Parts: sequence; C-alpha cells; structure tokens
Amino acid sequence: MASLPALAQQASRAEPLAIQDQGSFAVGGTVVRTPGTYENNKPTAAGQSLHGDHLYAFYQVPRSPKALPIVMLHGAFQSARSWETTSDGREGFQTLFLRRGFPVYLVDQPRRGRAGNSTVGMAVEPTPYDQLFFDQFRLGKWPNYFDGVQFDRKPETLDQFFRSVTPNTGPYDAGVISNAMAALFARTGPAILFTHSQGGGPGWLTAIKNENVKAIVAFEPGSGFIFPEGELPPAMPSAAGTLSPEAVPSADFQKLTRIPIVIYYGDNFPVEPTTERGQDNWRVRLAMAKLWVAAINKHGGDARLVHLPQIGIKGNTHFPFSDLNNVEIANLVSKFLAEKKLD
Amino acid sequence: MASLPALAQQASRAEPLAIQDQGSFAVGGTVVRTPGTYENNKPTAAGQSLHGDHLYAFYQVPRSPKALPIVMLHGAFQSARSWETTSDGREGFQTLFLRRGFPVYLVDQPRRGRAGNSTVGMAVEPTPYDQLFFDQFRLGKWPNYFDGVQFDRKPETLDQFFRSVTPNTGPYDAGVISNAMAALFARTGPAILFTHSQGGGPGWLTAIKNENVKAIVAFEPGSGFIFPEGELPPAMPSAAGTLSPEAVPSADFQKLTRIPIVIYYGDNFPVEPTTERGQDNWRVRLAMAKLWVAAINKHGGDARLVHLPQIGIKGNTHFPFSDLNNVEIANLVSKFLAEKKLD
Repeated sequence: MASLPALAQQASRAEPLAIQDQGSFAVGGTVVRTPGTYENNKPTAAGQSLHGDHLYAFYQVPRSPKALPIVMLHGAFQSARSWETTSDGREGFQTLFLRRGFPVYLVDQPRRGRAGNSTVGMAVEPTPYDQLFFDQFRLGKWPNYFDGVQFDRKPETLDQFFRSVTPNTGPYDAGVISNAMAALFARTGPAILFTHSQGGGPGWLTAIKNENVKAIVAFEPGSGFIFPEGELPPAMPSAAGTLSPEAVPSADFQKLTRIPIVIYYGDNFPVEPTTERGQDNWRVRLAMAKLWVAAINKHGGDARLVHLPQIGIKGNTHFPFSDLNNVEIANLVSKFLAEKKLD
Repeated sequence: MASLPALAQQASRAEPLAIQDQGSFAVGGTVVRTPGTYENNKPTAAGQSLHGDHLYAFYQVPRSPKALPIVMLHGAFQSARSWETTSDGREGFQTLFLRRGFPVYLVDQPRRGRAGNSTVGMAVEPTPYDQLFFDQFRLGKWPNYFDGVQFDRKPETLDQFFRSVTPNTGPYDAGVISNAMAALFARTGPAILFTHSQGGGPGWLTAIKNENVKAIVAFEPGSGFIFPEGELPPAMPSAAGTLSPEAVPSADFQKLTRIPIVIYYGDNFPVEPTTERGQDNWRVRLAMAKLWVAAINKHGGDARLVHLPQIGIKGNTHFPFSDLNNVEIANLVSKFLAEKKLD
C-alpha cells in the first residue's frame, strides 16, 4: 500500500463500497476448567477457566445483499489475510465478492491468528520456510520464478507474500476446526463456503456437520481427501511425501453429494513423477482430487474439478484467488455460482 | 451477532458506510537468514530465510476522508479485535470513527494475531486466566460484577469477551513493536495514535521514533511509563506487584512534548492501597500516569489525564472504548481531536 494521497488516487478509480454492516465475533470452541477454588487476591490456575478453540470471523454485509453469504477459510500457515489485499496490493476476494453483492465472512481458524487461544499447548518455533514456500506454493523453483507465473515480481510483493505467513498456536486439528466452522454456519444460516489448501479437508467436514453449507468452492485442496469406508484409493507417494486418503462413514460421505462443489487447481503441475519436490507435491494432490470428484459423482453428487491450464488459464500459483489474474478467477467462480443459482 | 435477517434489521437502523478503499498489509519487521545453501529437493533450514516481527494492519478509508487517519494499537492478550465489534455486539471504535470520517488502521502487533511470525521462539501454554482477567480488567470481583459497571451482563457477552484473548507467539518486546509501528506511520503519513493498556508503552516509543504521530489518545496505559534519565519517580508497590518507571534519554522524552496527548482511565480505582489485587493493580498505574503527565507538561508538553468518574462518567472497565457507553467515550475523544484541530 502506498501513502494516503496515492491511496486516494487509486481508490478514485473504483466505486466506493456501500457497507450495510460490519463487525467481528468468536464462535464455537470450548471452555476448559481447572479444578479448585479461585482466590481473587492470590490467583493461580486453581478454579480458573480458559475459553479456546473457537474461530474468529470478520464479516461485511453490502447494501442490498444477495441471499447467501460467502464464508472464506484459509489454508496452512495463513489467516483470513489470504483473502484480503493481494501481495502486490490489489483487491482480494474479500472485497471483490463484496462488490459483487455477497456478504463476506473471513475466518481465522481455531489456533491461528486472532483465534489463537488453544486448549492444547504448542511450541512456536521460528522456522525458516521462505524458500520452501516459494517452491511449494509454485511461484517457481527458488530463486527463479516460473515463466509466465501469475505473480508480480517486485521484491516488495514477495516480501508481503512471505509476511502473510502466521503460525499455529496449537496443534492442527481438522475436527476442532470443522466444529467451529459448523457453529459459524449455524449462525450465518445458509451460505457458500470457499476453502484454500489445507482448509479443504475441514471444509468437507463442515458440510457434513452442517447442512447450511450450500456449496463449496475449493482452491487447491491439499489434504483431508475423505472417501467412504471400504472405498479408499491407494496412498500416493511423491517427492514430497505420501498422500493418504482418509475414511469416513458412508452416510457422512453421502452428505457431500447434496451440494454443488467445484475445485480449482492452478498451473505448473507435472504430469509424470518428478524429483522436483515443490511441484511433485501437487501432482499427487491433483490426482487424488480427481479420484475424489469421481467418487462424489459416482455416489450421485455434483462435483467438478477445473484444472485451470486445461481451460486456457495459465500461470496460476497455489493462491489463484490472489494471483495477478484473480479477477478472471473470480469471474469463473461467479459463473459457477450463477449456474447453480446461488447468487 | 445474530442471524442475517436479524443483522439486516439491526443494520437498517444505521446508515451504510461508504468505504472508498480497504485492505491489509504487513509493515516493518526483519528477515532472519540461516547460513548454508538451500536445496530445493531436500529442504532443511540451511539457506532459508524467515520474515518476521512485522505488524499486520487492516485499513479502511471512508469517502471524503478527514486528513489524519487514526491508527489503533491493542493491549496485552488482545489483537485488533479489541477495536471491532464490542463483546455485546455493538459497533466498536473501528466503525464508529469510520462513520466520523477518519481513515482507520487496526494493528495486530508483531508476534500477535495475524502478525504471528516471530524471529524468537516461544511456548504457547493454554493458561486459565478468565477469572483473573475479570478482576484485573475491572468488570468486578469474580464472580460478581461491580454495581453500575458499563458491561453487559448476558453470559454470551462475557463469552465473547473471554474469546477476544489471543496469545503472544513470541516474547513481548516494546522495541520490536514500536519499530514496526514507526514503519507503519512512515507509510500512513501524519496520523493520530490510539493505544490501549500495554500498547501505551510502545505508543510513546512510536511517537519518539516517528514524528508522523501527531497526537496520542491512550486508554488505560498500564506499563512502559518513560521518564527522562535522572528524573525517575520511585517504583510503586501494589497488591499485584511493583510498577517501575523506565528511563529514556532526555532528548527522546522531549519529543513527546511536541504533540497533544490525552489519557483516559475508567472507574473502580481504589484511592488508598487495598488487598484487592485486581483493583490495586490500577491504583498505582493511575498514580504513575499522573506523575508522567506532570513530567510531560513540566517539560513544555501538552498532556492531560482524564479520570472518567471525575467528570461524571461512571462504571467504565479497562476497555472504555468497548464499554456500554462507548459512544459517549468516542464523543469525548472527538471533542479532544476537535479542540486540537486534528479532525
């Protein structure tokens, strides 16, 4: 972001947003109580409680809102920040979809960001991951960007990208996350769920737990591919480790067949196994997602996988919703929502 | 927050906000590099870097904005969430001051919330603090509220209040925080700083480090009272521990005399020492703040301390900006800003 005069100049190009209501709240979570009696003037843990494992949501409702809000859930190492301003300073999906008339809820999942109070402890270690993220999030092969990658190459853009990372404050737990997400959907009423990466797994579980999830738009789900018991495909080894499917009761899986689902993956996926760790990681995730979509549809569902390069959209990273062509990606999503009469 | 229909009903009472621009970014911080060579396909820490110790800011610029934005810095155990929706679901200072025409920047300080990437490690322990916070933030003496306290007594309000807590992800460091804050003010240009509680200390340091801080409105500063070397008052013991002043070079202290400063404290401060830990904690902070204001003014500055009960405003907790009477508090602040020609 530039100084305020520059901001004002930039902003003058776009119409002001008319926000009917905005705010934030915590939802879900639990309360842990320590036995004993609290002594006000000699406090110890005894008799005290801890509120934790909730999620945090910031919401905005535009004037004349559409009926279904959109709830956006980030991925690993990220927060709601993922959906706000892009690393190169343009509007992200939060504001783009507000402009399109949707109430938008941005989530910090339990044990992350502003929902940091965890009921389970954890050591936060300063881990140098920048170069691994550059590779794994498919900006390129460090230190080189992929040709034609949809990521601005100014150093300050990469700096912002790296600074969007924020750590877990407790162990990752898809059950804890999806419980809080289900509580959020109880509060929003019927709504559309957008997920990114690691958020994909808790996303499916949320839709199983609360039928207010009326559709899922998943960007590059990376783990948590759930199949009906007895129908699991083999695990898939890659240069970045082995990806294993996960089993759920058939009745739960069946719940995912009630709603339209679309999955988007970006560019620079290898077709054949490769020793390039950052890319090979995604080869198996894409392959598993294809099996997952086939399983949903075999059971009567309505899922679709869009591999962007196959429809002529090239260069997307692991973050298509904040890439240079994110308006084009938003248009794709809008078209999907219109087709499914969700807008 | 209620369901969407209820929301819409509530919102219909207020005018929509016209937002010219909104977004988020990281600013300040550092990069730590691990020696060695990064191997893309066998990644270890070697040759990798970590971006950390920045702050995160979310900003909104209303249509026809006033010249000076307001930057809001939270206190201990909190995030930017402090300034958003109140625990009982009303508009907080973020939206109230947007409605009054100010661009508003909300900060998650380095090593907190969405700015969680710390260059120094830390163990996050699930610590049961609810009852201590109830006492220390002067809602009452657990489990009883103070008579006339400006805090809604519905259980769900207290639940939201407790869930606004979020832990440090690295050691608290007023220098790290004020460095990032100074970088933020370099980006915003001239602006007004609001601080809360523990944020008070880094707030003074920010104004020393960057002259774009044009005024400070400090709510219940609790620590980091800085005095010129050689002019330190004695430390002050209380039932909650001893509060010590901190020394800075005279030339630095002198910089705080260039700008108008107002400090607000709420209700239920004991006049005499007491064994009530939660309250006695604040007796000494108020006393130290009075000495601090006197020191600033003695050196030619323009500081004022408003003890709210003394002007007839009763019942405020440690969070006056989100208490039941927060519009009245906002009016006080607006009057101050007008008087100082900052609006």
